[in-house]
Amino acid sequence: MDMSSGVAHKLYLEDLEAGQRFISRTHVVDEAQIKAFAREFDPQPFHLDHDAANDSLFAGLVASGWHTAAITMRLLVETGLPLADGIIGAGGELVWPKPTRPGDTLQVESEVLEVKPSHSRPDRGVVTTRILTRNQKNEIVQSLTAKLIVLRRRSIRG
Amino acid sequence: MDMSSGVAHKLYLEDLEAGQRFISRTHVVDEAQIKAFAREFDPQPFHLDHDAANDSLFAGLVASGWHTAAITMRLLVETGLPLADGIIGAGGELVWPKPTRPGDTLQVESEVLEVKPSHSRPDRGVVTTRILTRNQKNEIVQSLTAKLIVLRRRSIRG
Repeated sequence: MDMSSGVAHKLYLEDLEAGQRFISRTHVVDEAQIKAFAREFDPQPFHLDHDAANDSLFAGLVASGWHTAAITMRLLVETGLPLADGIIGAGGELVWPKPTRPGDTLQVESEVLEVKPSHSRPDRGVVTTRILTRNQKNEIVQSLTAKLIVLRRRSIRG
Repeated sequence: MDMSSGVAHKLYLEDLEAGQRFISRTHVVDEAQIKAFAREFDPQPFHLDHDAANDSLFAGLVASGWHTAAITMRLLVETGLPLADGIIGAGGELVWPKPTRPGDTLQVESEVLEVKPSHSRPDRGVVTTRILTRNQKNEIVQSLTAKLIVLRRRSIRG
């Protein structure tokens, strides 16, 4: 089942099941964003300087992987994953098969893989999601398999 | 073997071996930084607003996990992991056992777990590192087991 960003209701643990998919809006990453993030959090030459980047492994300027992750989170929060109590990650497995480059248009697709109610804390559960960030060529720039803490509806929490 | 941030030489693949450890400088995270990052990349109430945060799972304002990750990267790049050709991650496993809170002082300790020269590309290898980010109470706020692409010295690359 595909659910777009326009879902009317925010979702609780009991609304989620394996196979549900959500698509975010798109975001265009430009060079200014890449350099601003890098200056603050990842000041390496291949994120900041064209000539140095051309001489690097990347053969051109690329965004920090953490910038790709941060943009992915922004897209999830705004339109990608409508969880009522927010997107709260306990951790996950992160892969960057390709870098994000200036001019890339990113979009995030999330799929619920598993919903596991907590035995010790009946107000919540752990939801495993596969969160893929793609560029305009449909290439995956980030794959994140995340474990999210998701709460039940308040009325049931007691 | 412990190596502090002051190592004179930047390291290449052939300089690395399992067991080497590196310690970064510290960084104090304040509320303004937490809110600025959240406004841009993770605009959820528990990262932006004290009252909402008090009512949340976190019982108080917390930094985005991606902010903790980004600060960790900054510390690694500046003082934490002196790799000659930069810190280039292919991905990793990320856990946030505790959130970062306003006023926390973060420090990053990295340990080389495995060094695996590439067969297909003799100029490089994959180095697995365990990168722990701790707060001032010595609690782990982030554990990242990262696979890094590390190059050999240029003279040997042929």
